[in-house]
Amino acid sequence: MTEFFHVIPPDQFVEMLGRFPKLPPEPVGLDKALNRILAEDIIASEDLPEGARSTVDGFAVRAEDTFGASDSNPALLRVVASIPMGMIPDFTLGAGEAAQIPTGGFLPCGADAVVMVEYTNSTGADEIEVTRPVTIRTNVLEQGEDTRSGEILVAAGKRLRPQEIGFLAALGVTEIRSCRRPRVAVISSGDEVVPFDRTPGPGQIRDANGHAISALVSAWGGSPLQFPIVPDNAQEMTVTVKSALAQADVVTLSGGSSVGTRDLMVDVISGLPGVEVFAHGIAIRPGKPTLLAGQGDKPIVGLPGHPVSALVVAQVFLAPLLLHLQGGQLRKGPPGRRGKAVLGTSVHSTIGLEEYVRVRLEEGAGEDPTAYPVFGKSGMLSTLVKADGIVTIPMNVEGFSKGESVEVIYI
Amino acid sequence: MTEFFHVIPPDQFVEMLGRFPKLPPEPVGLDKALNRILAEDIIASEDLPEGARSTVDGFAVRAEDTFGASDSNPALLRVVASIPMGMIPDFTLGAGEAAQIPTGGFLPCGADAVVMVEYTNSTGADEIEVTRPVTIRTNVLEQGEDTRSGEILVAAGKRLRPQEIGFLAALGVTEIRSCRRPRVAVISSGDEVVPFDRTPGPGQIRDANGHAISALVSAWGGSPLQFPIVPDNAQEMTVTVKSALAQADVVTLSGGSSVGTRDLMVDVISGLPGVEVFAHGIAIRPGKPTLLAGQGDKPIVGLPGHPVSALVVAQVFLAPLLLHLQGGQLRKGPPGRRGKAVLGTSVHSTIGLEEYVRVRLEEGAGEDPTAYPVFGKSGMLSTLVKADGIVTIPMNVEGFSKGESVEVIYI
Repeated sequence: MTEFFHVIPPDQFVEMLGRFPKLPPEPVGLDKALNRILAEDIIASEDLPEGARSTVDGFAVRAEDTFGASDSNPALLRVVASIPMGMIPDFTLGAGEAAQIPTGGFLPCGADAVVMVEYTNSTGADEIEVTRPVTIRTNVLEQGEDTRSGEILVAAGKRLRPQEIGFLAALGVTEIRSCRRPRVAVISSGDEVVPFDRTPGPGQIRDANGHAISALVSAWGGSPLQFPIVPDNAQEMTVTVKSALAQADVVTLSGGSSVGTRDLMVDVISGLPGVEVFAHGIAIRPGKPTLLAGQGDKPIVGLPGHPVSALVVAQVFLAPLLLHLQGGQLRKGPPGRRGKAVLGTSVHSTIGLEEYVRVRLEEGAGEDPTAYPVFGKSGMLSTLVKADGIVTIPMNVEGFSKGESVEVIYI
Repeated sequence: MTEFFHVIPPDQFVEMLGRFPKLPPEPVGLDKALNRILAEDIIASEDLPEGARSTVDGFAVRAEDTFGASDSNPALLRVVASIPMGMIPDFTLGAGEAAQIPTGGFLPCGADAVVMVEYTNSTGADEIEVTRPVTIRTNVLEQGEDTRSGEILVAAGKRLRPQEIGFLAALGVTEIRSCRRPRVAVISSGDEVVPFDRTPGPGQIRDANGHAISALVSAWGGSPLQFPIVPDNAQEMTVTVKSALAQADVVTLSGGSSVGTRDLMVDVISGLPGVEVFAHGIAIRPGKPTLLAGQGDKPIVGLPGHPVSALVVAQVFLAPLLLHLQGGQLRKGPPGRRGKAVLGTSVHSTIGLEEYVRVRLEEGAGEDPTAYPVFGKSGMLSTLVKADGIVTIPMNVEGFSKGESVEVIYI
């Protein structure tokens, strides 16, 4: 161990991620903006709708003309017009008058409500009976009721869903601004690691980390740049990391689960010009030997070599870093779905380490699901495949009892 | 109305979606397989790990040599070798012997456990004291313990997450098979509808549906093909739908929120050669005027014209259809995150309609969030933007009371 092994609490680690500034904003066409995070508030430049519109098929009326109407005592109204879709009527509706109107049609002046066609009877060519009263604004969407000019439509920091895309299209927003998607260098190291399409020799293993981390980067909005596998050699690792820093916004390395290889990674990273090392480890399990460094604005994350540890750390810390760089809120843990579950068995942890227990969920009928820890040694990738989520046991907690309600983060 | 307006319950509608067969499988490179659904089980062709490996840095030992060891009475062992990473040792460990081993290193014959380096003291060049006993298999991942040759690694129907990608890479799976992603034609119609980049004239509105539905299609694994807006004209609509059926696996139309336009859409679709109409409406709110038809294996979904209704129907019925065509499980409702919430106010519904109430959530401290219905008329797109999810009120239920626990589907 060439340096003091500086292990910090997970919350402090997340705080340190916040020191890296978000990436510069770029214009993004609305049709490519799904899941992008808004860099700026979007302000409405017009009212939506532009005038009062009907929300049903029926007749535009003056509400007071229908007061007291019923099946036995209908209100008689004279039909003076049929309003076509997409036209602003150029007449004023007078007392005792009605105008046929389609869903989405614009109300004429004078009209202040719409009677659904179901509550009318046609009694002649130009006459209807209204059998139910309506109050002012019934079945009407007023001008600016959906959105008023000058209002914030969607606030900065929001990740755009299909409904925001539709809403912005309705208001003529064809382009938004969003922080650039981070380019993330993904480097796997280890003399024994071979590419996934090669048959390993005796004692060799295929690169699982490179592919898993690249997939995770894609899942959270980054663009992975997967580098060739680096042997345990300071010179080659230095060349690769330098090249990665030149091309990428974030550099991730994995490997170095054994003390010797880890030392090599620490030495190489801390020996690079302008690099500051912030943490040599996190008080978590799995994933303790995680390194955080930076060269200027570029974070360098040294992940553990064990695929399970590397992937857990990537879920809990790398995914939030990627969202933070895109302008999202920095929050520990995988940014995905969270939900409650009831523990099916007790789980234990070590005081002083925050533990991430992989669990599989069994759905109950309408109730919260039951969470069972996935059986298997920590090094087994199959445990993550069998897991639906993770349960966090805080640093100062010894564990949770069977039957306790816990939060599950879906992974 | 030219045909009997055949409204069916939502569950029957979902069942009808199941009549459309999934798309043919295609090979997908592992690095492009994130979120793809496996078309076939993947069977392990080898053991993982290929031999017993250490899960810690330490010393490979015969466990029985450490029995009874303690700080005051350590076991003395002779260090006979240092096992390098990525090598299968060619010697056999004898009684009273130990071999230094890195995390991930392969155990020599004769060794059946590993002592962590923390529980050893070096007492000479070739000698260590072991201060804690280990039992057989301690800190060892046995051959085939993660996965055994012949086992199902990942089952058909599973949507691949980063951990499955990593796991499959570790086992040398470079390609998977997955049903083709559906190409989805997205057609907006209406005389009053103009493209989102054009300033609407009086009474015109911009196309929100085309963009929202396309984004939703992308979100659930399909490729949207957005068609030019079609006017309310039977001949033009027929030409467009025919062209869409020739190019796409699924055709969606939106528009026809008013009775006249709806009739036109129904006439055009039912008039196409070989088209069967399965439903003219669903007993839901919003979204009742939804059409389901098919030409051979190709579903045709007529969405309501109202953007809010169109998007709700797309979330609840189109997203599951897209996943079903990709080989996923057919299940009503947006396939996303679900969770419990407590109602902040009572909500009411009409018997005979399944109602989708848009809600926003306020997080409580550690408790389930509180769900409040989003205020605003049903036609307002802003209500969907303000919503975090929807609460379903079943057909035979009048509503839920304030304080009741309900399921929220995040949208």
